[in-house]
Amino acid sequence: MNIRMLVYILGKVLLIEGVLMLLPILCGLFYGEGLVLYYVALAAIYVGAGFLISMKKPKNMTVFIKDGCVATALSWLVLSVCGCLPFILTGEIPSFTDAMFETASGFSTTGASILTDVEAMSHTSLMWRSLTHWIGGMGVLVFLLAVVPMTGGSNMNLMRAESPGPSVGKIVPKVRSTAKMLYLIYLAMTVAEIIILFACGMPLFDSICSAFGTAGTGGFGVRNDSFASYAPHIQWIVAIFMIMFGANFNFYYYFTTRQINKAFKMSEVKVYLAIIAVVTGIICFSVMGIYGSFGEALRHSFFQVATIITTTGFATTDFDLWPSVAKFLLLGLMIIGACASSTGGGIKVARFQIMFKTVKREIQSYIHPRTVKKILIDGKSVDSDVEHSVALYFFIYMIVFAVSMFIVSFEGHDLVTVFSSVAATFNNIGPGLALVGPTHNYSFFSNVSKWVFIIDMLAGRLELMPLIVFLTPTTYKGIIKKAPKTRA
Amino acid sequence: MNIRMLVYILGKVLLIEGVLMLLPILCGLFYGEGLVLYYVALAAIYVGAGFLISMKKPKNMTVFIKDGCVATALSWLVLSVCGCLPFILTGEIPSFTDAMFETASGFSTTGASILTDVEAMSHTSLMWRSLTHWIGGMGVLVFLLAVVPMTGGSNMNLMRAESPGPSVGKIVPKVRSTAKMLYLIYLAMTVAEIIILFACGMPLFDSICSAFGTAGTGGFGVRNDSFASYAPHIQWIVAIFMIMFGANFNFYYYFTTRQINKAFKMSEVKVYLAIIAVVTGIICFSVMGIYGSFGEALRHSFFQVATIITTTGFATTDFDLWPSVAKFLLLGLMIIGACASSTGGGIKVARFQIMFKTVKREIQSYIHPRTVKKILIDGKSVDSDVEHSVALYFFIYMIVFAVSMFIVSFEGHDLVTVFSSVAATFNNIGPGLALVGPTHNYSFFSNVSKWVFIIDMLAGRLELMPLIVFLTPTTYKGIIKKAPKTRA
Repeated sequence: MNIRMLVYILGKVLLIEGVLMLLPILCGLFYGEGLVLYYVALAAIYVGAGFLISMKKPKNMTVFIKDGCVATALSWLVLSVCGCLPFILTGEIPSFTDAMFETASGFSTTGASILTDVEAMSHTSLMWRSLTHWIGGMGVLVFLLAVVPMTGGSNMNLMRAESPGPSVGKIVPKVRSTAKMLYLIYLAMTVAEIIILFACGMPLFDSICSAFGTAGTGGFGVRNDSFASYAPHIQWIVAIFMIMFGANFNFYYYFTTRQINKAFKMSEVKVYLAIIAVVTGIICFSVMGIYGSFGEALRHSFFQVATIITTTGFATTDFDLWPSVAKFLLLGLMIIGACASSTGGGIKVARFQIMFKTVKREIQSYIHPRTVKKILIDGKSVDSDVEHSVALYFFIYMIVFAVSMFIVSFEGHDLVTVFSSVAATFNNIGPGLALVGPTHNYSFFSNVSKWVFIIDMLAGRLELMPLIVFLTPTTYKGIIKKAPKTRA
Repeated sequence: MNIRMLVYILGKVLLIEGVLMLLPILCGLFYGEGLVLYYVALAAIYVGAGFLISMKKPKNMTVFIKDGCVATALSWLVLSVCGCLPFILTGEIPSFTDAMFETASGFSTTGASILTDVEAMSHTSLMWRSLTHWIGGMGVLVFLLAVVPMTGGSNMNLMRAESPGPSVGKIVPKVRSTAKMLYLIYLAMTVAEIIILFACGMPLFDSICSAFGTAGTGGFGVRNDSFASYAPHIQWIVAIFMIMFGANFNFYYYFTTRQINKAFKMSEVKVYLAIIAVVTGIICFSVMGIYGSFGEALRHSFFQVATIITTTGFATTDFDLWPSVAKFLLLGLMIIGACASSTGGGIKVARFQIMFKTVKREIQSYIHPRTVKKILIDGKSVDSDVEHSVALYFFIYMIVFAVSMFIVSFEGHDLVTVFSSVAATFNNIGPGLALVGPTHNYSFFSNVSKWVFIIDMLAGRLELMPLIVFLTPTTYKGIIKKAPKTRA
């Protein structure tokens, strides 16, 4: 394992985190909040320490896939631990477990909260809390790749470990310019949302925080009722932006590189939009009786479908009161999730596409045993390795889900709470059903359950493998005893 | 498609069903029940029609895997439709949907019932109802194979389609003698249970019906409270027999062929027993407060774990009143299911074993990318085809599960009822939780949901593929237009 490189990456991550704290600091100065001093002190420490640690570039900058996994898992742990300190120091979230929960929920773009009164928080901390969503959305290592030059294979191993979805697609070769371009698109869309929301009458502070929450598909709001008390047209705008951030970013990448044909051929985006349309229709039909008009039913259905499939987690209404079929569909959307290479969570539409095509071929193999076909997605054949690891992903996902439910079920809450709390954290959504419905929060769980959720949130955001490799003891065999050359 | 062979098989199935009706007829004559005449008439028709249809052996007896799937699916449909007619004619279950539900539940060894008062049924019909479990447990085509000589590959394609589990193992080559041996073991164990139960003071009628329900891991009882009112020692005996019938039958096969070493090396049986021990322990601990003594808690825990993991579905207590962790574990056992090549349902322990080993190898491939290892089960390497189709099985399983839940959720029952009713029928258990808990039944569902359950029960028993191939339109392409020779 390349430990020097690992330390170098962690130093850079710390440095970036310190620099990004400037935004809440500016916000705190603007509002004249005294507790901004804690942020200043921490930012100074992070920047200083990060600079010292990563000053000297390691000679060997090779990152194998194993190292990439460990670097990613450690980076996100460092981010969360360092990111939660301000909440503890300011006394706004005194418990370490709670502060870790809130910060891991932020960086993993989950949006589940242990806060019972969001509006009692300082502007500084609310801004930092929402900013963690924005950082977590596109990923801090992708940001690092955009800034620090590395050798080709190493870039890929880092990017693969952090980016959502079964593969980063055809844009892999030029990782650095891709990372830059992705961040530029991400930044531009976020700024666009801030301007539009502000122009539509939302206060600037709310606009910035809401845009961060939308862009990272996070879900932290600045009001206790999430989005219920914002004007209907604001709700429509946010819903549309959520869907845009939940789409595969290759779609926008193709646009910026003038490959518009390719963009419109992306079947994943089509399937994603089709699911949104169909499920919105069914839910709208089923909740018509609850709301006054068709327009209102449609708005709430569309917003809730958008917020759940993109795994954002804002809410305009208490969907826990909806009929079973609507609740079942929302649970289904939680698990499906957004597109690969988006900022959203869940299993991802692309994985379902690959699996459905594999199943179709399996059925065909019973009917015409001698024809073996390759699976095609957007006209390109899917590697059998990818196919295999997607199938495995579903199984590992189920196992992590079941183990989490088992531990949480010891608290004795009803099974819908147990299921949906795990679903809502593991898939990075935030609100679930019953006791963790949109009008509730996660404060009542025991510390054990909270740590299960913290691990689930990070595991979900990093798509399992980095965290699993990080937690497997054999990963570190080479450190104690020098690994032979055949082992990479 | 070999249609002549298909007709021949269906004829034989009908013939067998008619002959097996002799048992309820004898029972009806013994109790002097007039409605036995309906059974006599139907048995005569089935035997006559079956004999005429299958009188002439087709020259070409080849059964390809596609044909095997269609033959299996059709056989089970014919069994269910013809098997439900007595209930309709006697007026005991007047609705066709309800009678089909009860019969499909019987043959698929589910044990879910639409009867609100089991004790009001005639002895004749109760006997027939329990006998369907016994027939469904080992499979009617396996029975056919034991009686009718066919060519090697054709045997396998039929047996593969009907037998539970990822593969029928090493005993494949001599399909016919294996089928005979399996049925002999099955019969011997059933008779043993009848004798022991009778000797322990259970009425003979109850002993026979209970043994049929245990052997087929079905779950139909003859009392309204299932097993709650039988003596504790009877409950222990039945629990142990359930576990025996849920074990891989290769275990007993090795015993009869004096390969005792091989029998005790079977890792699936070990894992299966370990799961039972661990889960019984946890549940016993969690329900201790509910029952008067440790012994009672242990008995109820052990019985319920045995009845659920083997997918039988008897009950000695209302486990819907148990704490969340116990209910969660029972739901988990429903999905895991019994061993491959047993009479039980669910996904099967062997599939989980294969998947866990695949996952372990995947993790290793991240750590040591250059080592590719074969997966070993009991010292033999698992074919990559098997590995792949096991992974797919989990996905198809999830999809069928989700689609079923979607349709059932339209009725508006709570999500635990929706989830557990599908889990309990699809995995061939019977009772679930909440509205379908052990003290309830399935009579309140709409006909649409009942048909979803009927399909789920048969799909679960036949392990998906036969029914999916049967329902795929391209399967029948060769019938309308003669298939070219390259297509098998």
